Amino acid sequence: MEIGRRVWAIAEGYIPGWSNGPGHDFISHEAACILNVSDKEANIEITIYFSDKNPVGPYKLKVPAKRTRHFRFNDLKDPAPIPLATDYSSVIVSDVPIVVQHTRLDSRQDANALITTIAYGQ
Amino acid sequence: MEIGRRVWAIAEGYIPGWSNGPGHDFISHEAACILNVSDKEANIEITIYFSDKNPVGPYKLKVPAKRTRHFRFNDLKDPAPIPLATDYSSVIVSDVPIVVQHTRLDSRQDANALITTIAYGQ
Amino acid sequence: MEIGRRVWAIAEGYIPGWSNGPGHDFISHEAACILNVSDKEANIEITIYFSDKNPVGPYKLKVPAKRTRHFRFNDLKDPAPIPLATDYSSVIVSDVPIVVQHTRLDSRQDANALITTIAYGQ
Amino acid sequence: MEIGRRVWAIAEGYIPGWSNGPGHDFISHEAACILNVSDKEANIEITIYFSDKNPVGPYKLKVPAKRTRHFRFNDLKDPAPIPLATDYSSVIVSDVPIVVQHTRLDSRQDANALITTIAYGQ
Repeated sequence: MEIGRRVWAIAEGYIPGWSNGPGHDFISHEAACILNVSDKEANIEITIYFSDKNPVGPYKLKVPAKRTRHFRFNDLKDPAPIPLATDYSSVIVSDVPIVVQHTRLDSRQDANALITTIAYGQ
Repeated sequence: MEIGRRVWAIAEGYIPGWSNGPGHDFISHEAACILNVSDKEANIEITIYFSDKNPVGPYKLKVPAKRTRHFRFNDLKDPAPIPLATDYSSVIVSDVPIVVQHTRLDSRQDANALITTIAYGQ
Repeated sequence: MEIGRRVWAIAEGYIPGWSNGPGHDFISHEAACILNVSDKEANIEITIYFSDKNPVGPYKLKVPAKRTRHFRFNDLKDPAPIPLATDYSSVIVSDVPIVVQHTRLDSRQDANALITTIAYGQ
Repeated sequence: MEIGRRVWAIAEGYIPGWSNGPGHDFISHEAACILNVSDKEANIEITIYFSDKNPVGPYKLKVPAKRTRHFRFNDLKDPAPIPLATDYSSVIVSDVPIVVQHTRLDSRQDANALITTIAYGQ
């Protein structure tokens, strides 16, 4: 069974500049949660778009067959880390169908705030 | 009238590891809210995908005709409970059209945080 | 220009049972935000689905041409108010294309939590 | 590669009337995050719909080729600013395909609340 699309976009993107709360879980972050239900490894390329400079990428990631990966944009390092407190967007292209959901945890104030949406799949 | 799809996916999945607040309502949880407007009972199978092990399922659920059920992933027990503080995704398959919406309540900090999105329907 | 669909569903539905904060704005509530860009008044019927009893409705609403209305489910009274702290879902049918977005404000704890999603349009 | 649609709608719209927290980041606001991956500048027109008066617009914006812009509705001034604490909706039309995501930061209470959803694309 195939589920998903090969091209996805997340127009919102912003990693808050600071954090409150204990440990790795409460570091302010954005994630692309990627589900690959196929029986082939997904080779994924993410391109990051900015408001005032050329796009950066591709960031190359893999999601094994029948697995999910919740990638933090904070952890993308190659070709360049994503600056904090900066507007961006992302395009995610895979060689097999995947499903992409966008999430942010913002722990800048005393209690954390969360957002999520299924990305735009094409 | 038929409303919905027979195959849905939620790429984000994470049940926070602890909770604050009074009673069952404020236990950190994730839910799949499933609406069945048809005049037949929906037989539903959920499969849970992980980052580092094989999928688990199917979890078998029913939603009666013309009813809604807000299932907490915390309550899924057979074939195995979903571990807390662990990344997962879910695929939801029904024999009649349904509508699926994903929600999380995270009460780890002093005030609760909420997320929701209509799932990816195919 | 026509924008939207005539049939929408919101699978999540839950009006929190209590509230904190000043005035009408901070009463815990759910809303269906409905946009009608057409040049005809939209005649809308909402049906509410429950987990353990028959659907209730239709609730009849109008959105004038080229207007938006953010209806609180809390305010639906005829044929019956929606009980608080109770799982429900809604189906929204219009005679002209509309766009529907679901929102909840939950002010049970010290800071409010918010959710939103574009509804499922068919 | 083309990604997106030329017509988008956001049925929810509400800029909270006050704010807590340090600086520009924590001013309660709504944003339309717009991604243009095409190689042409996007000429965008936003029309704002209200509950009790005629639509206002178009607000004319540009997103350069291969760029993203996160526009705050708070910053729209021409032909008229959007009143605070007022229900509205928006329609966003572009001459090239774009992707639109809606976000609100509500900092009226001690901790901020966030919402997001991919807009309705047609």
